Amino acid sequence: MSYFRKNIDNMEGYVPGEQPKGGNVVKLNTNENPYPPSPAVIEALQKEINGDLRLYPDPIAGSAKNEIGKLFNISPNSVIVGNGSDDVLTMIIRSFVGPGDKVVIPYPTYSLYETLAELQDGEICNIDFNDDFSLSDNIVVKDARVTFLSNPNSPSGTMIPPEKVLDIAKKIEGVLVVDEAYADFAETNCVGLIDKCPNVIVLRTLSKSYSLAGLRLGIGMAQEELINGMTKVKDSYNVDRLGIVGLVAALKDQDHMQDNAEKIKKTRVFLSESLTNWGFHVHPSQSNFIFAKCPGNVNANELFSELKNRQILVRYFNKPKTDDCLRITIGTDDEIKTLLTNIADILKIS
Amino acid sequence: MSYFRKNIDNMEGYVPGEQPKGGNVVKLNTNENPYPPSPAVIEALQKEINGDLRLYPDPIAGSAKNEIGKLFNISPNSVIVGNGSDDVLTMIIRSFVGPGDKVVIPYPTYSLYETLAELQDGEICNIDFNDDFSLSDNIVVKDARVTFLSNPNSPSGTMIPPEKVLDIAKKIEGVLVVDEAYADFAETNCVGLIDKCPNVIVLRTLSKSYSLAGLRLGIGMAQEELINGMTKVKDSYNVDRLGIVGLVAALKDQDHMQDNAEKIKKTRVFLSESLTNWGFHVHPSQSNFIFAKCPGNVNANELFSELKNRQILVRYFNKPKTDDCLRITIGTDDEIKTLLTNIADILKIS
Repeated sequence: MSYFRKNIDNMEGYVPGEQPKGGNVVKLNTNENPYPPSPAVIEALQKEINGDLRLYPDPIAGSAKNEIGKLFNISPNSVIVGNGSDDVLTMIIRSFVGPGDKVVIPYPTYSLYETLAELQDGEICNIDFNDDFSLSDNIVVKDARVTFLSNPNSPSGTMIPPEKVLDIAKKIEGVLVVDEAYADFAETNCVGLIDKCPNVIVLRTLSKSYSLAGLRLGIGMAQEELINGMTKVKDSYNVDRLGIVGLVAALKDQDHMQDNAEKIKKTRVFLSESLTNWGFHVHPSQSNFIFAKCPGNVNANELFSELKNRQILVRYFNKPKTDDCLRITIGTDDEIKTLLTNIADILKIS
Repeated sequence: MSYFRKNIDNMEGYVPGEQPKGGNVVKLNTNENPYPPSPAVIEALQKEINGDLRLYPDPIAGSAKNEIGKLFNISPNSVIVGNGSDDVLTMIIRSFVGPGDKVVIPYPTYSLYETLAELQDGEICNIDFNDDFSLSDNIVVKDARVTFLSNPNSPSGTMIPPEKVLDIAKKIEGVLVVDEAYADFAETNCVGLIDKCPNVIVLRTLSKSYSLAGLRLGIGMAQEELINGMTKVKDSYNVDRLGIVGLVAALKDQDHMQDNAEKIKKTRVFLSESLTNWGFHVHPSQSNFIFAKCPGNVNANELFSELKNRQILVRYFNKPKTDDCLRITIGTDDEIKTLLTNIADILKIS
């Protein structure tokens, strides 16, 4: 006999990318930013480390909501702050999905969406991306309560244009979640849809472009009615005192974030071109990673393992449509050069 | 038409105690510790504020689990760490309760339990405490999936002895959650039941005794099978890098925590005796607050409001069995003297 719900017993649980403890590892597996966060964030955090940690944080993180509102030119009432955007994703699934409710998830994408749907005992509808990672109208599923769209998508790095997203939002009945974790590395985004669509929730995270994966800060933006309901589902004090001041300081220093994003985009071009020259097919990336299909004579899993033996971590998804590819986070130029040198060595490219 | 699940639309949402922004407020409303956290915590946090914040935290907070295991003399595999104990409560409700499943909640107690059950669309079974805040065998409800026990209880401050808790654990079919948020201010606790009962989960928090409400750190302890299932439900990176080192440093400095707990217990006696002398009935408290029933001629709501006008925040619950009482957090001696002076003034006690 189990104490657990059946759906919990039956599920696997999400497996996050490996987080090695110390050592001299080139870590290109979980889309972290290779550059440190803004010095202004460090300073703000240091100031906040004091006896007031004995007090609860502001439950709605008001100062953070104000700063987010300013940055995106929306009302603070259209904002909810999460302990990472995973926390906002959890609020969403719990708000809108009950047992048997349909959850639409393109494939392949961020596998946490599926885990979250399983946790709610929802019915998962996987809709394959086209081969070029565009989306057909199959994504519009009758009675879907939530449709997830990672945009830019992981692991592909590709993007559905905002016009197409708007079209989908209008056609579906339920909520459309546009997870823009990588938007700061893209040419466009869907924040403009919030005003137009009462069913669109746009997510951001400070883990990637703001170099704050270790602080757990995510953002949800939608029309006020959705935010109000999701606030009921949110843990009362989900973002801690340090997180709130860290978020405000990070958003205020747009220059630091943009400079790092520009460097990453340049390195992205370099890596993409190098691998393309060696026969890899690299999907056009709008994110801080690339998704590279290995040449026909190269086994992706073996290449992944050999790189790992050499202390270079990239990501390999041993599943249909992804098992001939590697997802590689854009590191520093030096890290990417080390990666390329090792790939050339392993594949005997001279 | 609403996008939300019916149970979400129908519920109110949890209302946390007021968190005033600045000002010269005597804050005795949310059971925070009046003394600052250990200097060792401050130092550990300062050391952790560096460029590595760009990296994700350890998803299972291994170093924290080890430290907790050492302190409570249990295996680290019997431990789960939460973003506050509210996060652990959320994991529990999502692990064990589906729509229509029974959730047993004594009354009156921490109202979040009811909110969490509503979020899962569970069936809430409220079981009244006896007048002296003991529990009858009514707490054993057939088919209950989860039974919550805040022990010491909030708002009463009273405690069910471990022998009685063991008896309940053996009689019920589902999981028994013993929320020991205030255990460091009590004479005994139920950690010893974990080994004996496969259905007991004991919770701790660093918000109260360790003066770290602002950092959000909670602990769940149970036999390994329960912990493993709950880990599937947990957000992957629920505790941030700063939280993990803060937890380890706080637990290592037991002297600091114990010294503060002793001071608080002394002040608790002083406050309890003073109010008792003025005709209040103070329930015997094992926590860092007291629950005081006002004398017959005193309206608790009015006293609460008048104290608030004077910038003294205590907690008033306008519900059956609690609407003639105030819950007062134990502050510093000076804060409690200020409180008493003002109560005397309001009630014209000379």
